[in-house]
Amino acid sequence: MRKDDERMTKFTHFNEQGRSKMVDISSKEKTDRTAIAQSSITVNKTIHNHIIEGKSKKGDVLAVAQVAGIMAAKNTANIIPMCHPILLSGMNITFDWFIDEEQDTYEILIESEVKTTGSTGVEMEALAAASVTALTIYDMCKSVSKDLVIGPTMLLSKTGGKTGDYSRDIT
Amino acid sequence: MRKDDERMTKFTHFNEQGRSKMVDISSKEKTDRTAIAQSSITVNKTIHNHIIEGKSKKGDVLAVAQVAGIMAAKNTANIIPMCHPILLSGMNITFDWFIDEEQDTYEILIESEVKTTGSTGVEMEALAAASVTALTIYDMCKSVSKDLVIGPTMLLSKTGGKTGDYSRDIT
Amino acid sequence: MRKDDERMTKFTHFNEQGRSKMVDISSKEKTDRTAIAQSSITVNKTIHNHIIEGKSKKGDVLAVAQVAGIMAAKNTANIIPMCHPILLSGMNITFDWFIDEEQDTYEILIESEVKTTGSTGVEMEALAAASVTALTIYDMCKSVSKDLVIGPTMLLSKTGGKTGDYSRDIT
Amino acid sequence: MRKDDERMTKFTHFNEQGRSKMVDISSKEKTDRTAIAQSSITVNKTIHNHIIEGKSKKGDVLAVAQVAGIMAAKNTANIIPMCHPILLSGMNITFDWFIDEEQDTYEILIESEVKTTGSTGVEMEALAAASVTALTIYDMCKSVSKDLVIGPTMLLSKTGGKTGDYSRDIT
Amino acid sequence: MRKDDERMTKFTHFNEQGRSKMVDISSKEKTDRTAIAQSSITVNKTIHNHIIEGKSKKGDVLAVAQVAGIMAAKNTANIIPMCHPILLSGMNITFDWFIDEEQDTYEILIESEVKTTGSTGVEMEALAAASVTALTIYDMCKSVSKDLVIGPTMLLSKTGGKTGDYSRDIT
Amino acid sequence: MRKDDERMTKFTHFNEQGRSKMVDISSKEKTDRTAIAQSSITVNKTIHNHIIEGKSKKGDVLAVAQVAGIMAAKNTANIIPMCHPILLSGMNITFDWFIDEEQDTYEILIESEVKTTGSTGVEMEALAAASVTALTIYDMCKSVSKDLVIGPTMLLSKTGGKTGDYSRDIT
Repeated sequence: MRKDDERMTKFTHFNEQGRSKMVDISSKEKTDRTAIAQSSITVNKTIHNHIIEGKSKKGDVLAVAQVAGIMAAKNTANIIPMCHPILLSGMNITFDWFIDEEQDTYEILIESEVKTTGSTGVEMEALAAASVTALTIYDMCKSVSKDLVIGPTMLLSKTGGKTGDYSRDIT
Repeated sequence: MRKDDERMTKFTHFNEQGRSKMVDISSKEKTDRTAIAQSSITVNKTIHNHIIEGKSKKGDVLAVAQVAGIMAAKNTANIIPMCHPILLSGMNITFDWFIDEEQDTYEILIESEVKTTGSTGVEMEALAAASVTALTIYDMCKSVSKDLVIGPTMLLSKTGGKTGDYSRDIT
Repeated sequence: MRKDDERMTKFTHFNEQGRSKMVDISSKEKTDRTAIAQSSITVNKTIHNHIIEGKSKKGDVLAVAQVAGIMAAKNTANIIPMCHPILLSGMNITFDWFIDEEQDTYEILIESEVKTTGSTGVEMEALAAASVTALTIYDMCKSVSKDLVIGPTMLLSKTGGKTGDYSRDIT
Repeated sequence: MRKDDERMTKFTHFNEQGRSKMVDISSKEKTDRTAIAQSSITVNKTIHNHIIEGKSKKGDVLAVAQVAGIMAAKNTANIIPMCHPILLSGMNITFDWFIDEEQDTYEILIESEVKTTGSTGVEMEALAAASVTALTIYDMCKSVSKDLVIGPTMLLSKTGGKTGDYSRDIT
Repeated sequence: MRKDDERMTKFTHFNEQGRSKMVDISSKEKTDRTAIAQSSITVNKTIHNHIIEGKSKKGDVLAVAQVAGIMAAKNTANIIPMCHPILLSGMNITFDWFIDEEQDTYEILIESEVKTTGSTGVEMEALAAASVTALTIYDMCKSVSKDLVIGPTMLLSKTGGKTGDYSRDIT
Repeated sequence: MRKDDERMTKFTHFNEQGRSKMVDISSKEKTDRTAIAQSSITVNKTIHNHIIEGKSKKGDVLAVAQVAGIMAAKNTANIIPMCHPILLSGMNITFDWFIDEEQDTYEILIESEVKTTGSTGVEMEALAAASVTALTIYDMCKSVSKDLVIGPTMLLSKTGGKTGDYSRDIT
């Protein structure tokens, strides 16, 4: 069926032998591109208090996590097999707390923003950065609790490139 | 307060200057250890069909993702800053589909199991493997849809080591 | 001798102190470049049968090997000391069987094709990819036999760049 | 058939879902292990002369290649997906020339020897080291000729471990 | 001369062909080992003020540098060609200011301490950590001044291993 | 105060939350850039004699060190957290001896030169290369003496980029 065929051609990561390949992007033009991804980690009150006090007094969990996230973004093409290597031109990670004391909920929202000028997008870099930032927070707090939950992790938006801009529909 | 002090000593990742360090594990005994973690990725019906057919006909998304997850487990100490290097003795990743056609829900459950004999646990290796497996599936399907959501990602269980066994309470 | 001098200047990897350097390519123009390399691995009948059945039933040796080859191509500048870092724009690996049942010969031919737009060629990336693909097949079959032989490994062709196109003379 | 089943269980790299895994070696005992592998590269007379003079006068191709080979051995578990990480206890690479002036043949034989004390063997480390040593020689001589041929590459011998010693039958 | 010969055998990094090798440590016993190294970076008053205020208000240069140092220690065997891979059991980096306002001197002293239980020492890990910590401080302050000077960098002490303890003679 | 504000904006590595980020360079123009850095290592007479004889007879310490330095330059963005990935177009390392026999001083001066065409400079690559070259010399000579001192390490000059050329004032 034509419709099915069309759809299938969108699975661009496979070669004529039905195995994976790194898609050829040599004819794609270089444009400015950005991607913003989000992850999160749900901690408990003890960990929450430690982290917010920690920045000035006991050590900064989020500073370490953020360094890990930035290094992961630069390393994405070595972690995700079919990703193209990309020269990132900028990278930022920010944190927000979502707290509902009645529900005893303490969640750290992690937002990663990546920029490049190139022939392919930086979605995977943003997603990898957000994921590794969350994993690092887990690592540094796991001696207090192993019940921490990471995610959901998702793309919030992207700009640039042939497929155009994307913005997640959040309702 | 004594109780607070006690609790604080559990944040073992900080040194006397309030900065991070890699915890000294030289006096911990070598034991057999395992950890099982879970992540997931919610895809759509087109992608679901592609993946299940793919194994024999069009290419195997999950095979690539699994290789990425196994390599990430081995590379965890280079990705997570305060993780100790560990010699993994075994590593396995399996997949299950959770499908609810009425809700149009197609979710891939990813389970990673890591084993070692050593002085520290392999939770982070299992969590990193599950996360990178999910990220790789995202990468290979993102030309079809960018709405895919990764996670939640969490530790399911661990055995071995001083703090004893852990099994997540799922209700 | 002039002729010898000329020839010697072609050994571009050495500096004025007679030690190695990474050649300066800053004045070379950016062009589209491709390289195709070949390696092979000679297995036995048991392994042959396993691999061709494996794709649908028991696991896909070649899928894992191919992921390894693609990741090696991206990592070439970290493996080969004097290689320039390059942003690959595409990468594909394919397999063919050469079988002579009378001679009990079962050989997997591995062909790797790499593309870039840049100031230097991608021969080393293609050769590294083909080599690592073969090594990975060896690894996954060595529990059956250690007699497997890898190679010969060679450049088949290249296009682009100042020195022009190259095509191996096979007779 | 029983015999076939037996043989099939020797393909230890696959899990119950028919996908690859890193084999569990936690019950294997730690023994002293060695592996010796061989690769080679066939060059031409110009390159031969350059390399043998080079050591004292113009730069030492083989010194660079050897460093690359040793670093590759240490990095094997990051290059070959299902390889276990191993702490190498020793590593040596030596070179020999096989020359037949009448046939205008100039071949560099590369022998790599790896030692460890551990639960799994070092065949892959020895093979990766020999391959990368050859690739590096190619890289440093490719400005003179692209006709160089690498390999065959093979395991010469191994000692230690459950499967016992192995020595290639060369006739 | 016998004395010279003896001395020469201490250059253990060379094989019988006069090229480098990774020394065989398989017969060395596993002992607890520590190493402490020191580096430093001389900054100016503006940078000094920024760094000490930074920890609570503007961002923590030293926190980032310390993460870099710890990751470098774990990565030493991939950076220094003849280093053996080692499983670090602990790692700590601390900072001290040496200030002489009259001389307008503002120097950050960096001390790195590394622990392991193994067959070879961790001097190189400690030295690499201290060096990379200093390099990272340079990187984060170079927009203010490029006159910053790193080092001297040296081993302060080591314990464990056949050659016994070492303590630098500082006079 | 305006002056302080101005100065503070020069600390470009921090985001609005006071944590580190990778600076956005997407609006910076691509120019040819070079950087030259220097490090050194002070050895003793025994080591000096070994190294200078070594090149032809016993093994070439400096050849190994130089390979390590070149590989470190390519790897800088993975070692220094906030460094941008850069495609180096050329890289050279040279050595000079500074000897004062009366003072029994034997110092190896290490000069590293890096070139690129890009949106950001290569100072960190040059500094990392010089540092790692010195560390590698230390590693290969530490069996003779652990008193070796590395550095000082510093930028000698840079060209290209918005901030203009820099040349260290040596008096």
